[in-house]
Amino acid sequence: MGIAIISPGREVKKWKENFYVLDKSIRVQVYPEISDKEAVEAVLLWQHPKGILNQFPNLKLICSMGAGVDHILSDQSIPSHIPIVRIVDEKLTYSMTNYALMGILNYHRQIFRYQLNQKKKIWDMSNPEIDIHVGVMGVGALGGDLVDKLLYMGIPVSGYGNSPKSGLNFPYYFGDQLNDFLAQVNVIVCMLPLTPQTENILNISLFENCNKGTYLINVARGRHLVEEDLLEALDKGYLSGALLDVYRKEPLPKDHPFWERNEITITPHIASVTNPDAAAPQIIDNYKRLKNSQPLINQINLTLGY
Amino acid sequence: MGIAIISPGREVKKWKENFYVLDKSIRVQVYPEISDKEAVEAVLLWQHPKGILNQFPNLKLICSMGAGVDHILSDQSIPSHIPIVRIVDEKLTYSMTNYALMGILNYHRQIFRYQLNQKKKIWDMSNPEIDIHVGVMGVGALGGDLVDKLLYMGIPVSGYGNSPKSGLNFPYYFGDQLNDFLAQVNVIVCMLPLTPQTENILNISLFENCNKGTYLINVARGRHLVEEDLLEALDKGYLSGALLDVYRKEPLPKDHPFWERNEITITPHIASVTNPDAAAPQIIDNYKRLKNSQPLINQINLTLGY
Repeated sequence: MGIAIISPGREVKKWKENFYVLDKSIRVQVYPEISDKEAVEAVLLWQHPKGILNQFPNLKLICSMGAGVDHILSDQSIPSHIPIVRIVDEKLTYSMTNYALMGILNYHRQIFRYQLNQKKKIWDMSNPEIDIHVGVMGVGALGGDLVDKLLYMGIPVSGYGNSPKSGLNFPYYFGDQLNDFLAQVNVIVCMLPLTPQTENILNISLFENCNKGTYLINVARGRHLVEEDLLEALDKGYLSGALLDVYRKEPLPKDHPFWERNEITITPHIASVTNPDAAAPQIIDNYKRLKNSQPLINQINLTLGY
Repeated sequence: MGIAIISPGREVKKWKENFYVLDKSIRVQVYPEISDKEAVEAVLLWQHPKGILNQFPNLKLICSMGAGVDHILSDQSIPSHIPIVRIVDEKLTYSMTNYALMGILNYHRQIFRYQLNQKKKIWDMSNPEIDIHVGVMGVGALGGDLVDKLLYMGIPVSGYGNSPKSGLNFPYYFGDQLNDFLAQVNVIVCMLPLTPQTENILNISLFENCNKGTYLINVARGRHLVEEDLLEALDKGYLSGALLDVYRKEPLPKDHPFWERNEITITPHIASVTNPDAAAPQIIDNYKRLKNSQPLINQINLTLGY
């Protein structure tokens, strides 16, 4: 077996170490130094150069380095007969849930207001908390875990997604019920997969239908959000603030208006970072399943796009 | 029945409304306008003037307006034969847990570092989280709930208290095992009752025994913390920062050094504020229990002091 890691600009040392520990017979090549293209049977991708996969005649498996696969599917040259798998990692879920919950609680308990008051030495005990009802957009492996933790904490929560779901223990809205969902909530956490249906879903017409002062958290993809519409929604008071971890262009350009907005908190795409210790075994496992004609784990449905 | 509310400087309108809705026959007088002292059978106290209770010859029940009773017990003139009860309120627990969890997650996911980076337009993806093991000091009604929520979230937690406890599903240390407890943790949440044994427990000799860079959250009482020792511990790197909600003097004086320390986040004693809607019925209930010689709810053990 041979694996090629193609993730320009990312540190891959821990991935290589993990593959070596798991199976010394695996030949791991790292882009751009891939000298033996015929040896590559699996690729591990993060924002690969488009069209590059056509160079590997024996490719049998495409693995995303994270939970999302939009960065793979956006490459039109990907051969449709090769299965694509993604990482589902408890640690990834733990990080994502903790990050989202941090953002939710900071809004609920108004830490940013207290930070401003501290600068001015103001002691203001009034209105110590904002009652919240959290709306989670996308209730898959990641969003579902956040919902579960919120319910356990006694925090009201509703979910929204593209397709109907049954057997849920919380209110769930789908498809064209978006406005009914928005009417219930004052914190929105976007954890949707990025697909043609969800791209630009966070736009001014959605924000107009939010309860006044709603708080936005985006931990999914930058392309879910129309960035100029967020600025307009803040200016008009539709939203009171936002915690953003993802952007249309990353790193966020120095001249981007988000940097200087007090209502926006910026983190540099760190909400949830794939842990090679947990993820590498999944890739080896899937490769062996493929060889043995067993069903793959966490395979992408190309029709749904996630 | 007659109740006197003695809580100088606090708004008591909602308390009066709640008592009226619960039982119109109750005569509610508010300090300092207590004209009929003989009618007072129960008092509801928050930082009352010491010695004042001797003015009420028919007093039968002393109620704290919050979860703590140190503000009552510090009055040496309190008659020892009159039972003291405190408020145990799910909403109070909900607020306290959410506040503490906010502080824990802000340290874990380093929001303050990202806020500083945002000001300088720095995109730094390195070290996206600090592995945490939370130490909860005081695992009663409030601390126990925080431990429960942390366990559910998969966050490692240990507890510490003054007395032994059995049947717990988490590591617990007591009495002189304080240093063993400190060795396990890198976030400390103080939720202890204030007693002669716990006053000043957060001092330089405790901080010296912490893991380097430990983060402190104090939501209990200002007198748990030796405030100048916190500054020394930050200067020496024993602690990396602190979230404080309580202080030896409140409101925190304008010239107090805490206001200007970057490592300290100040909130104005709002972590958990007693909700009159939930608490007023407990007071009426306890008064009726007293009249009917039934056991009181949430009565204080004067020997333990909580």
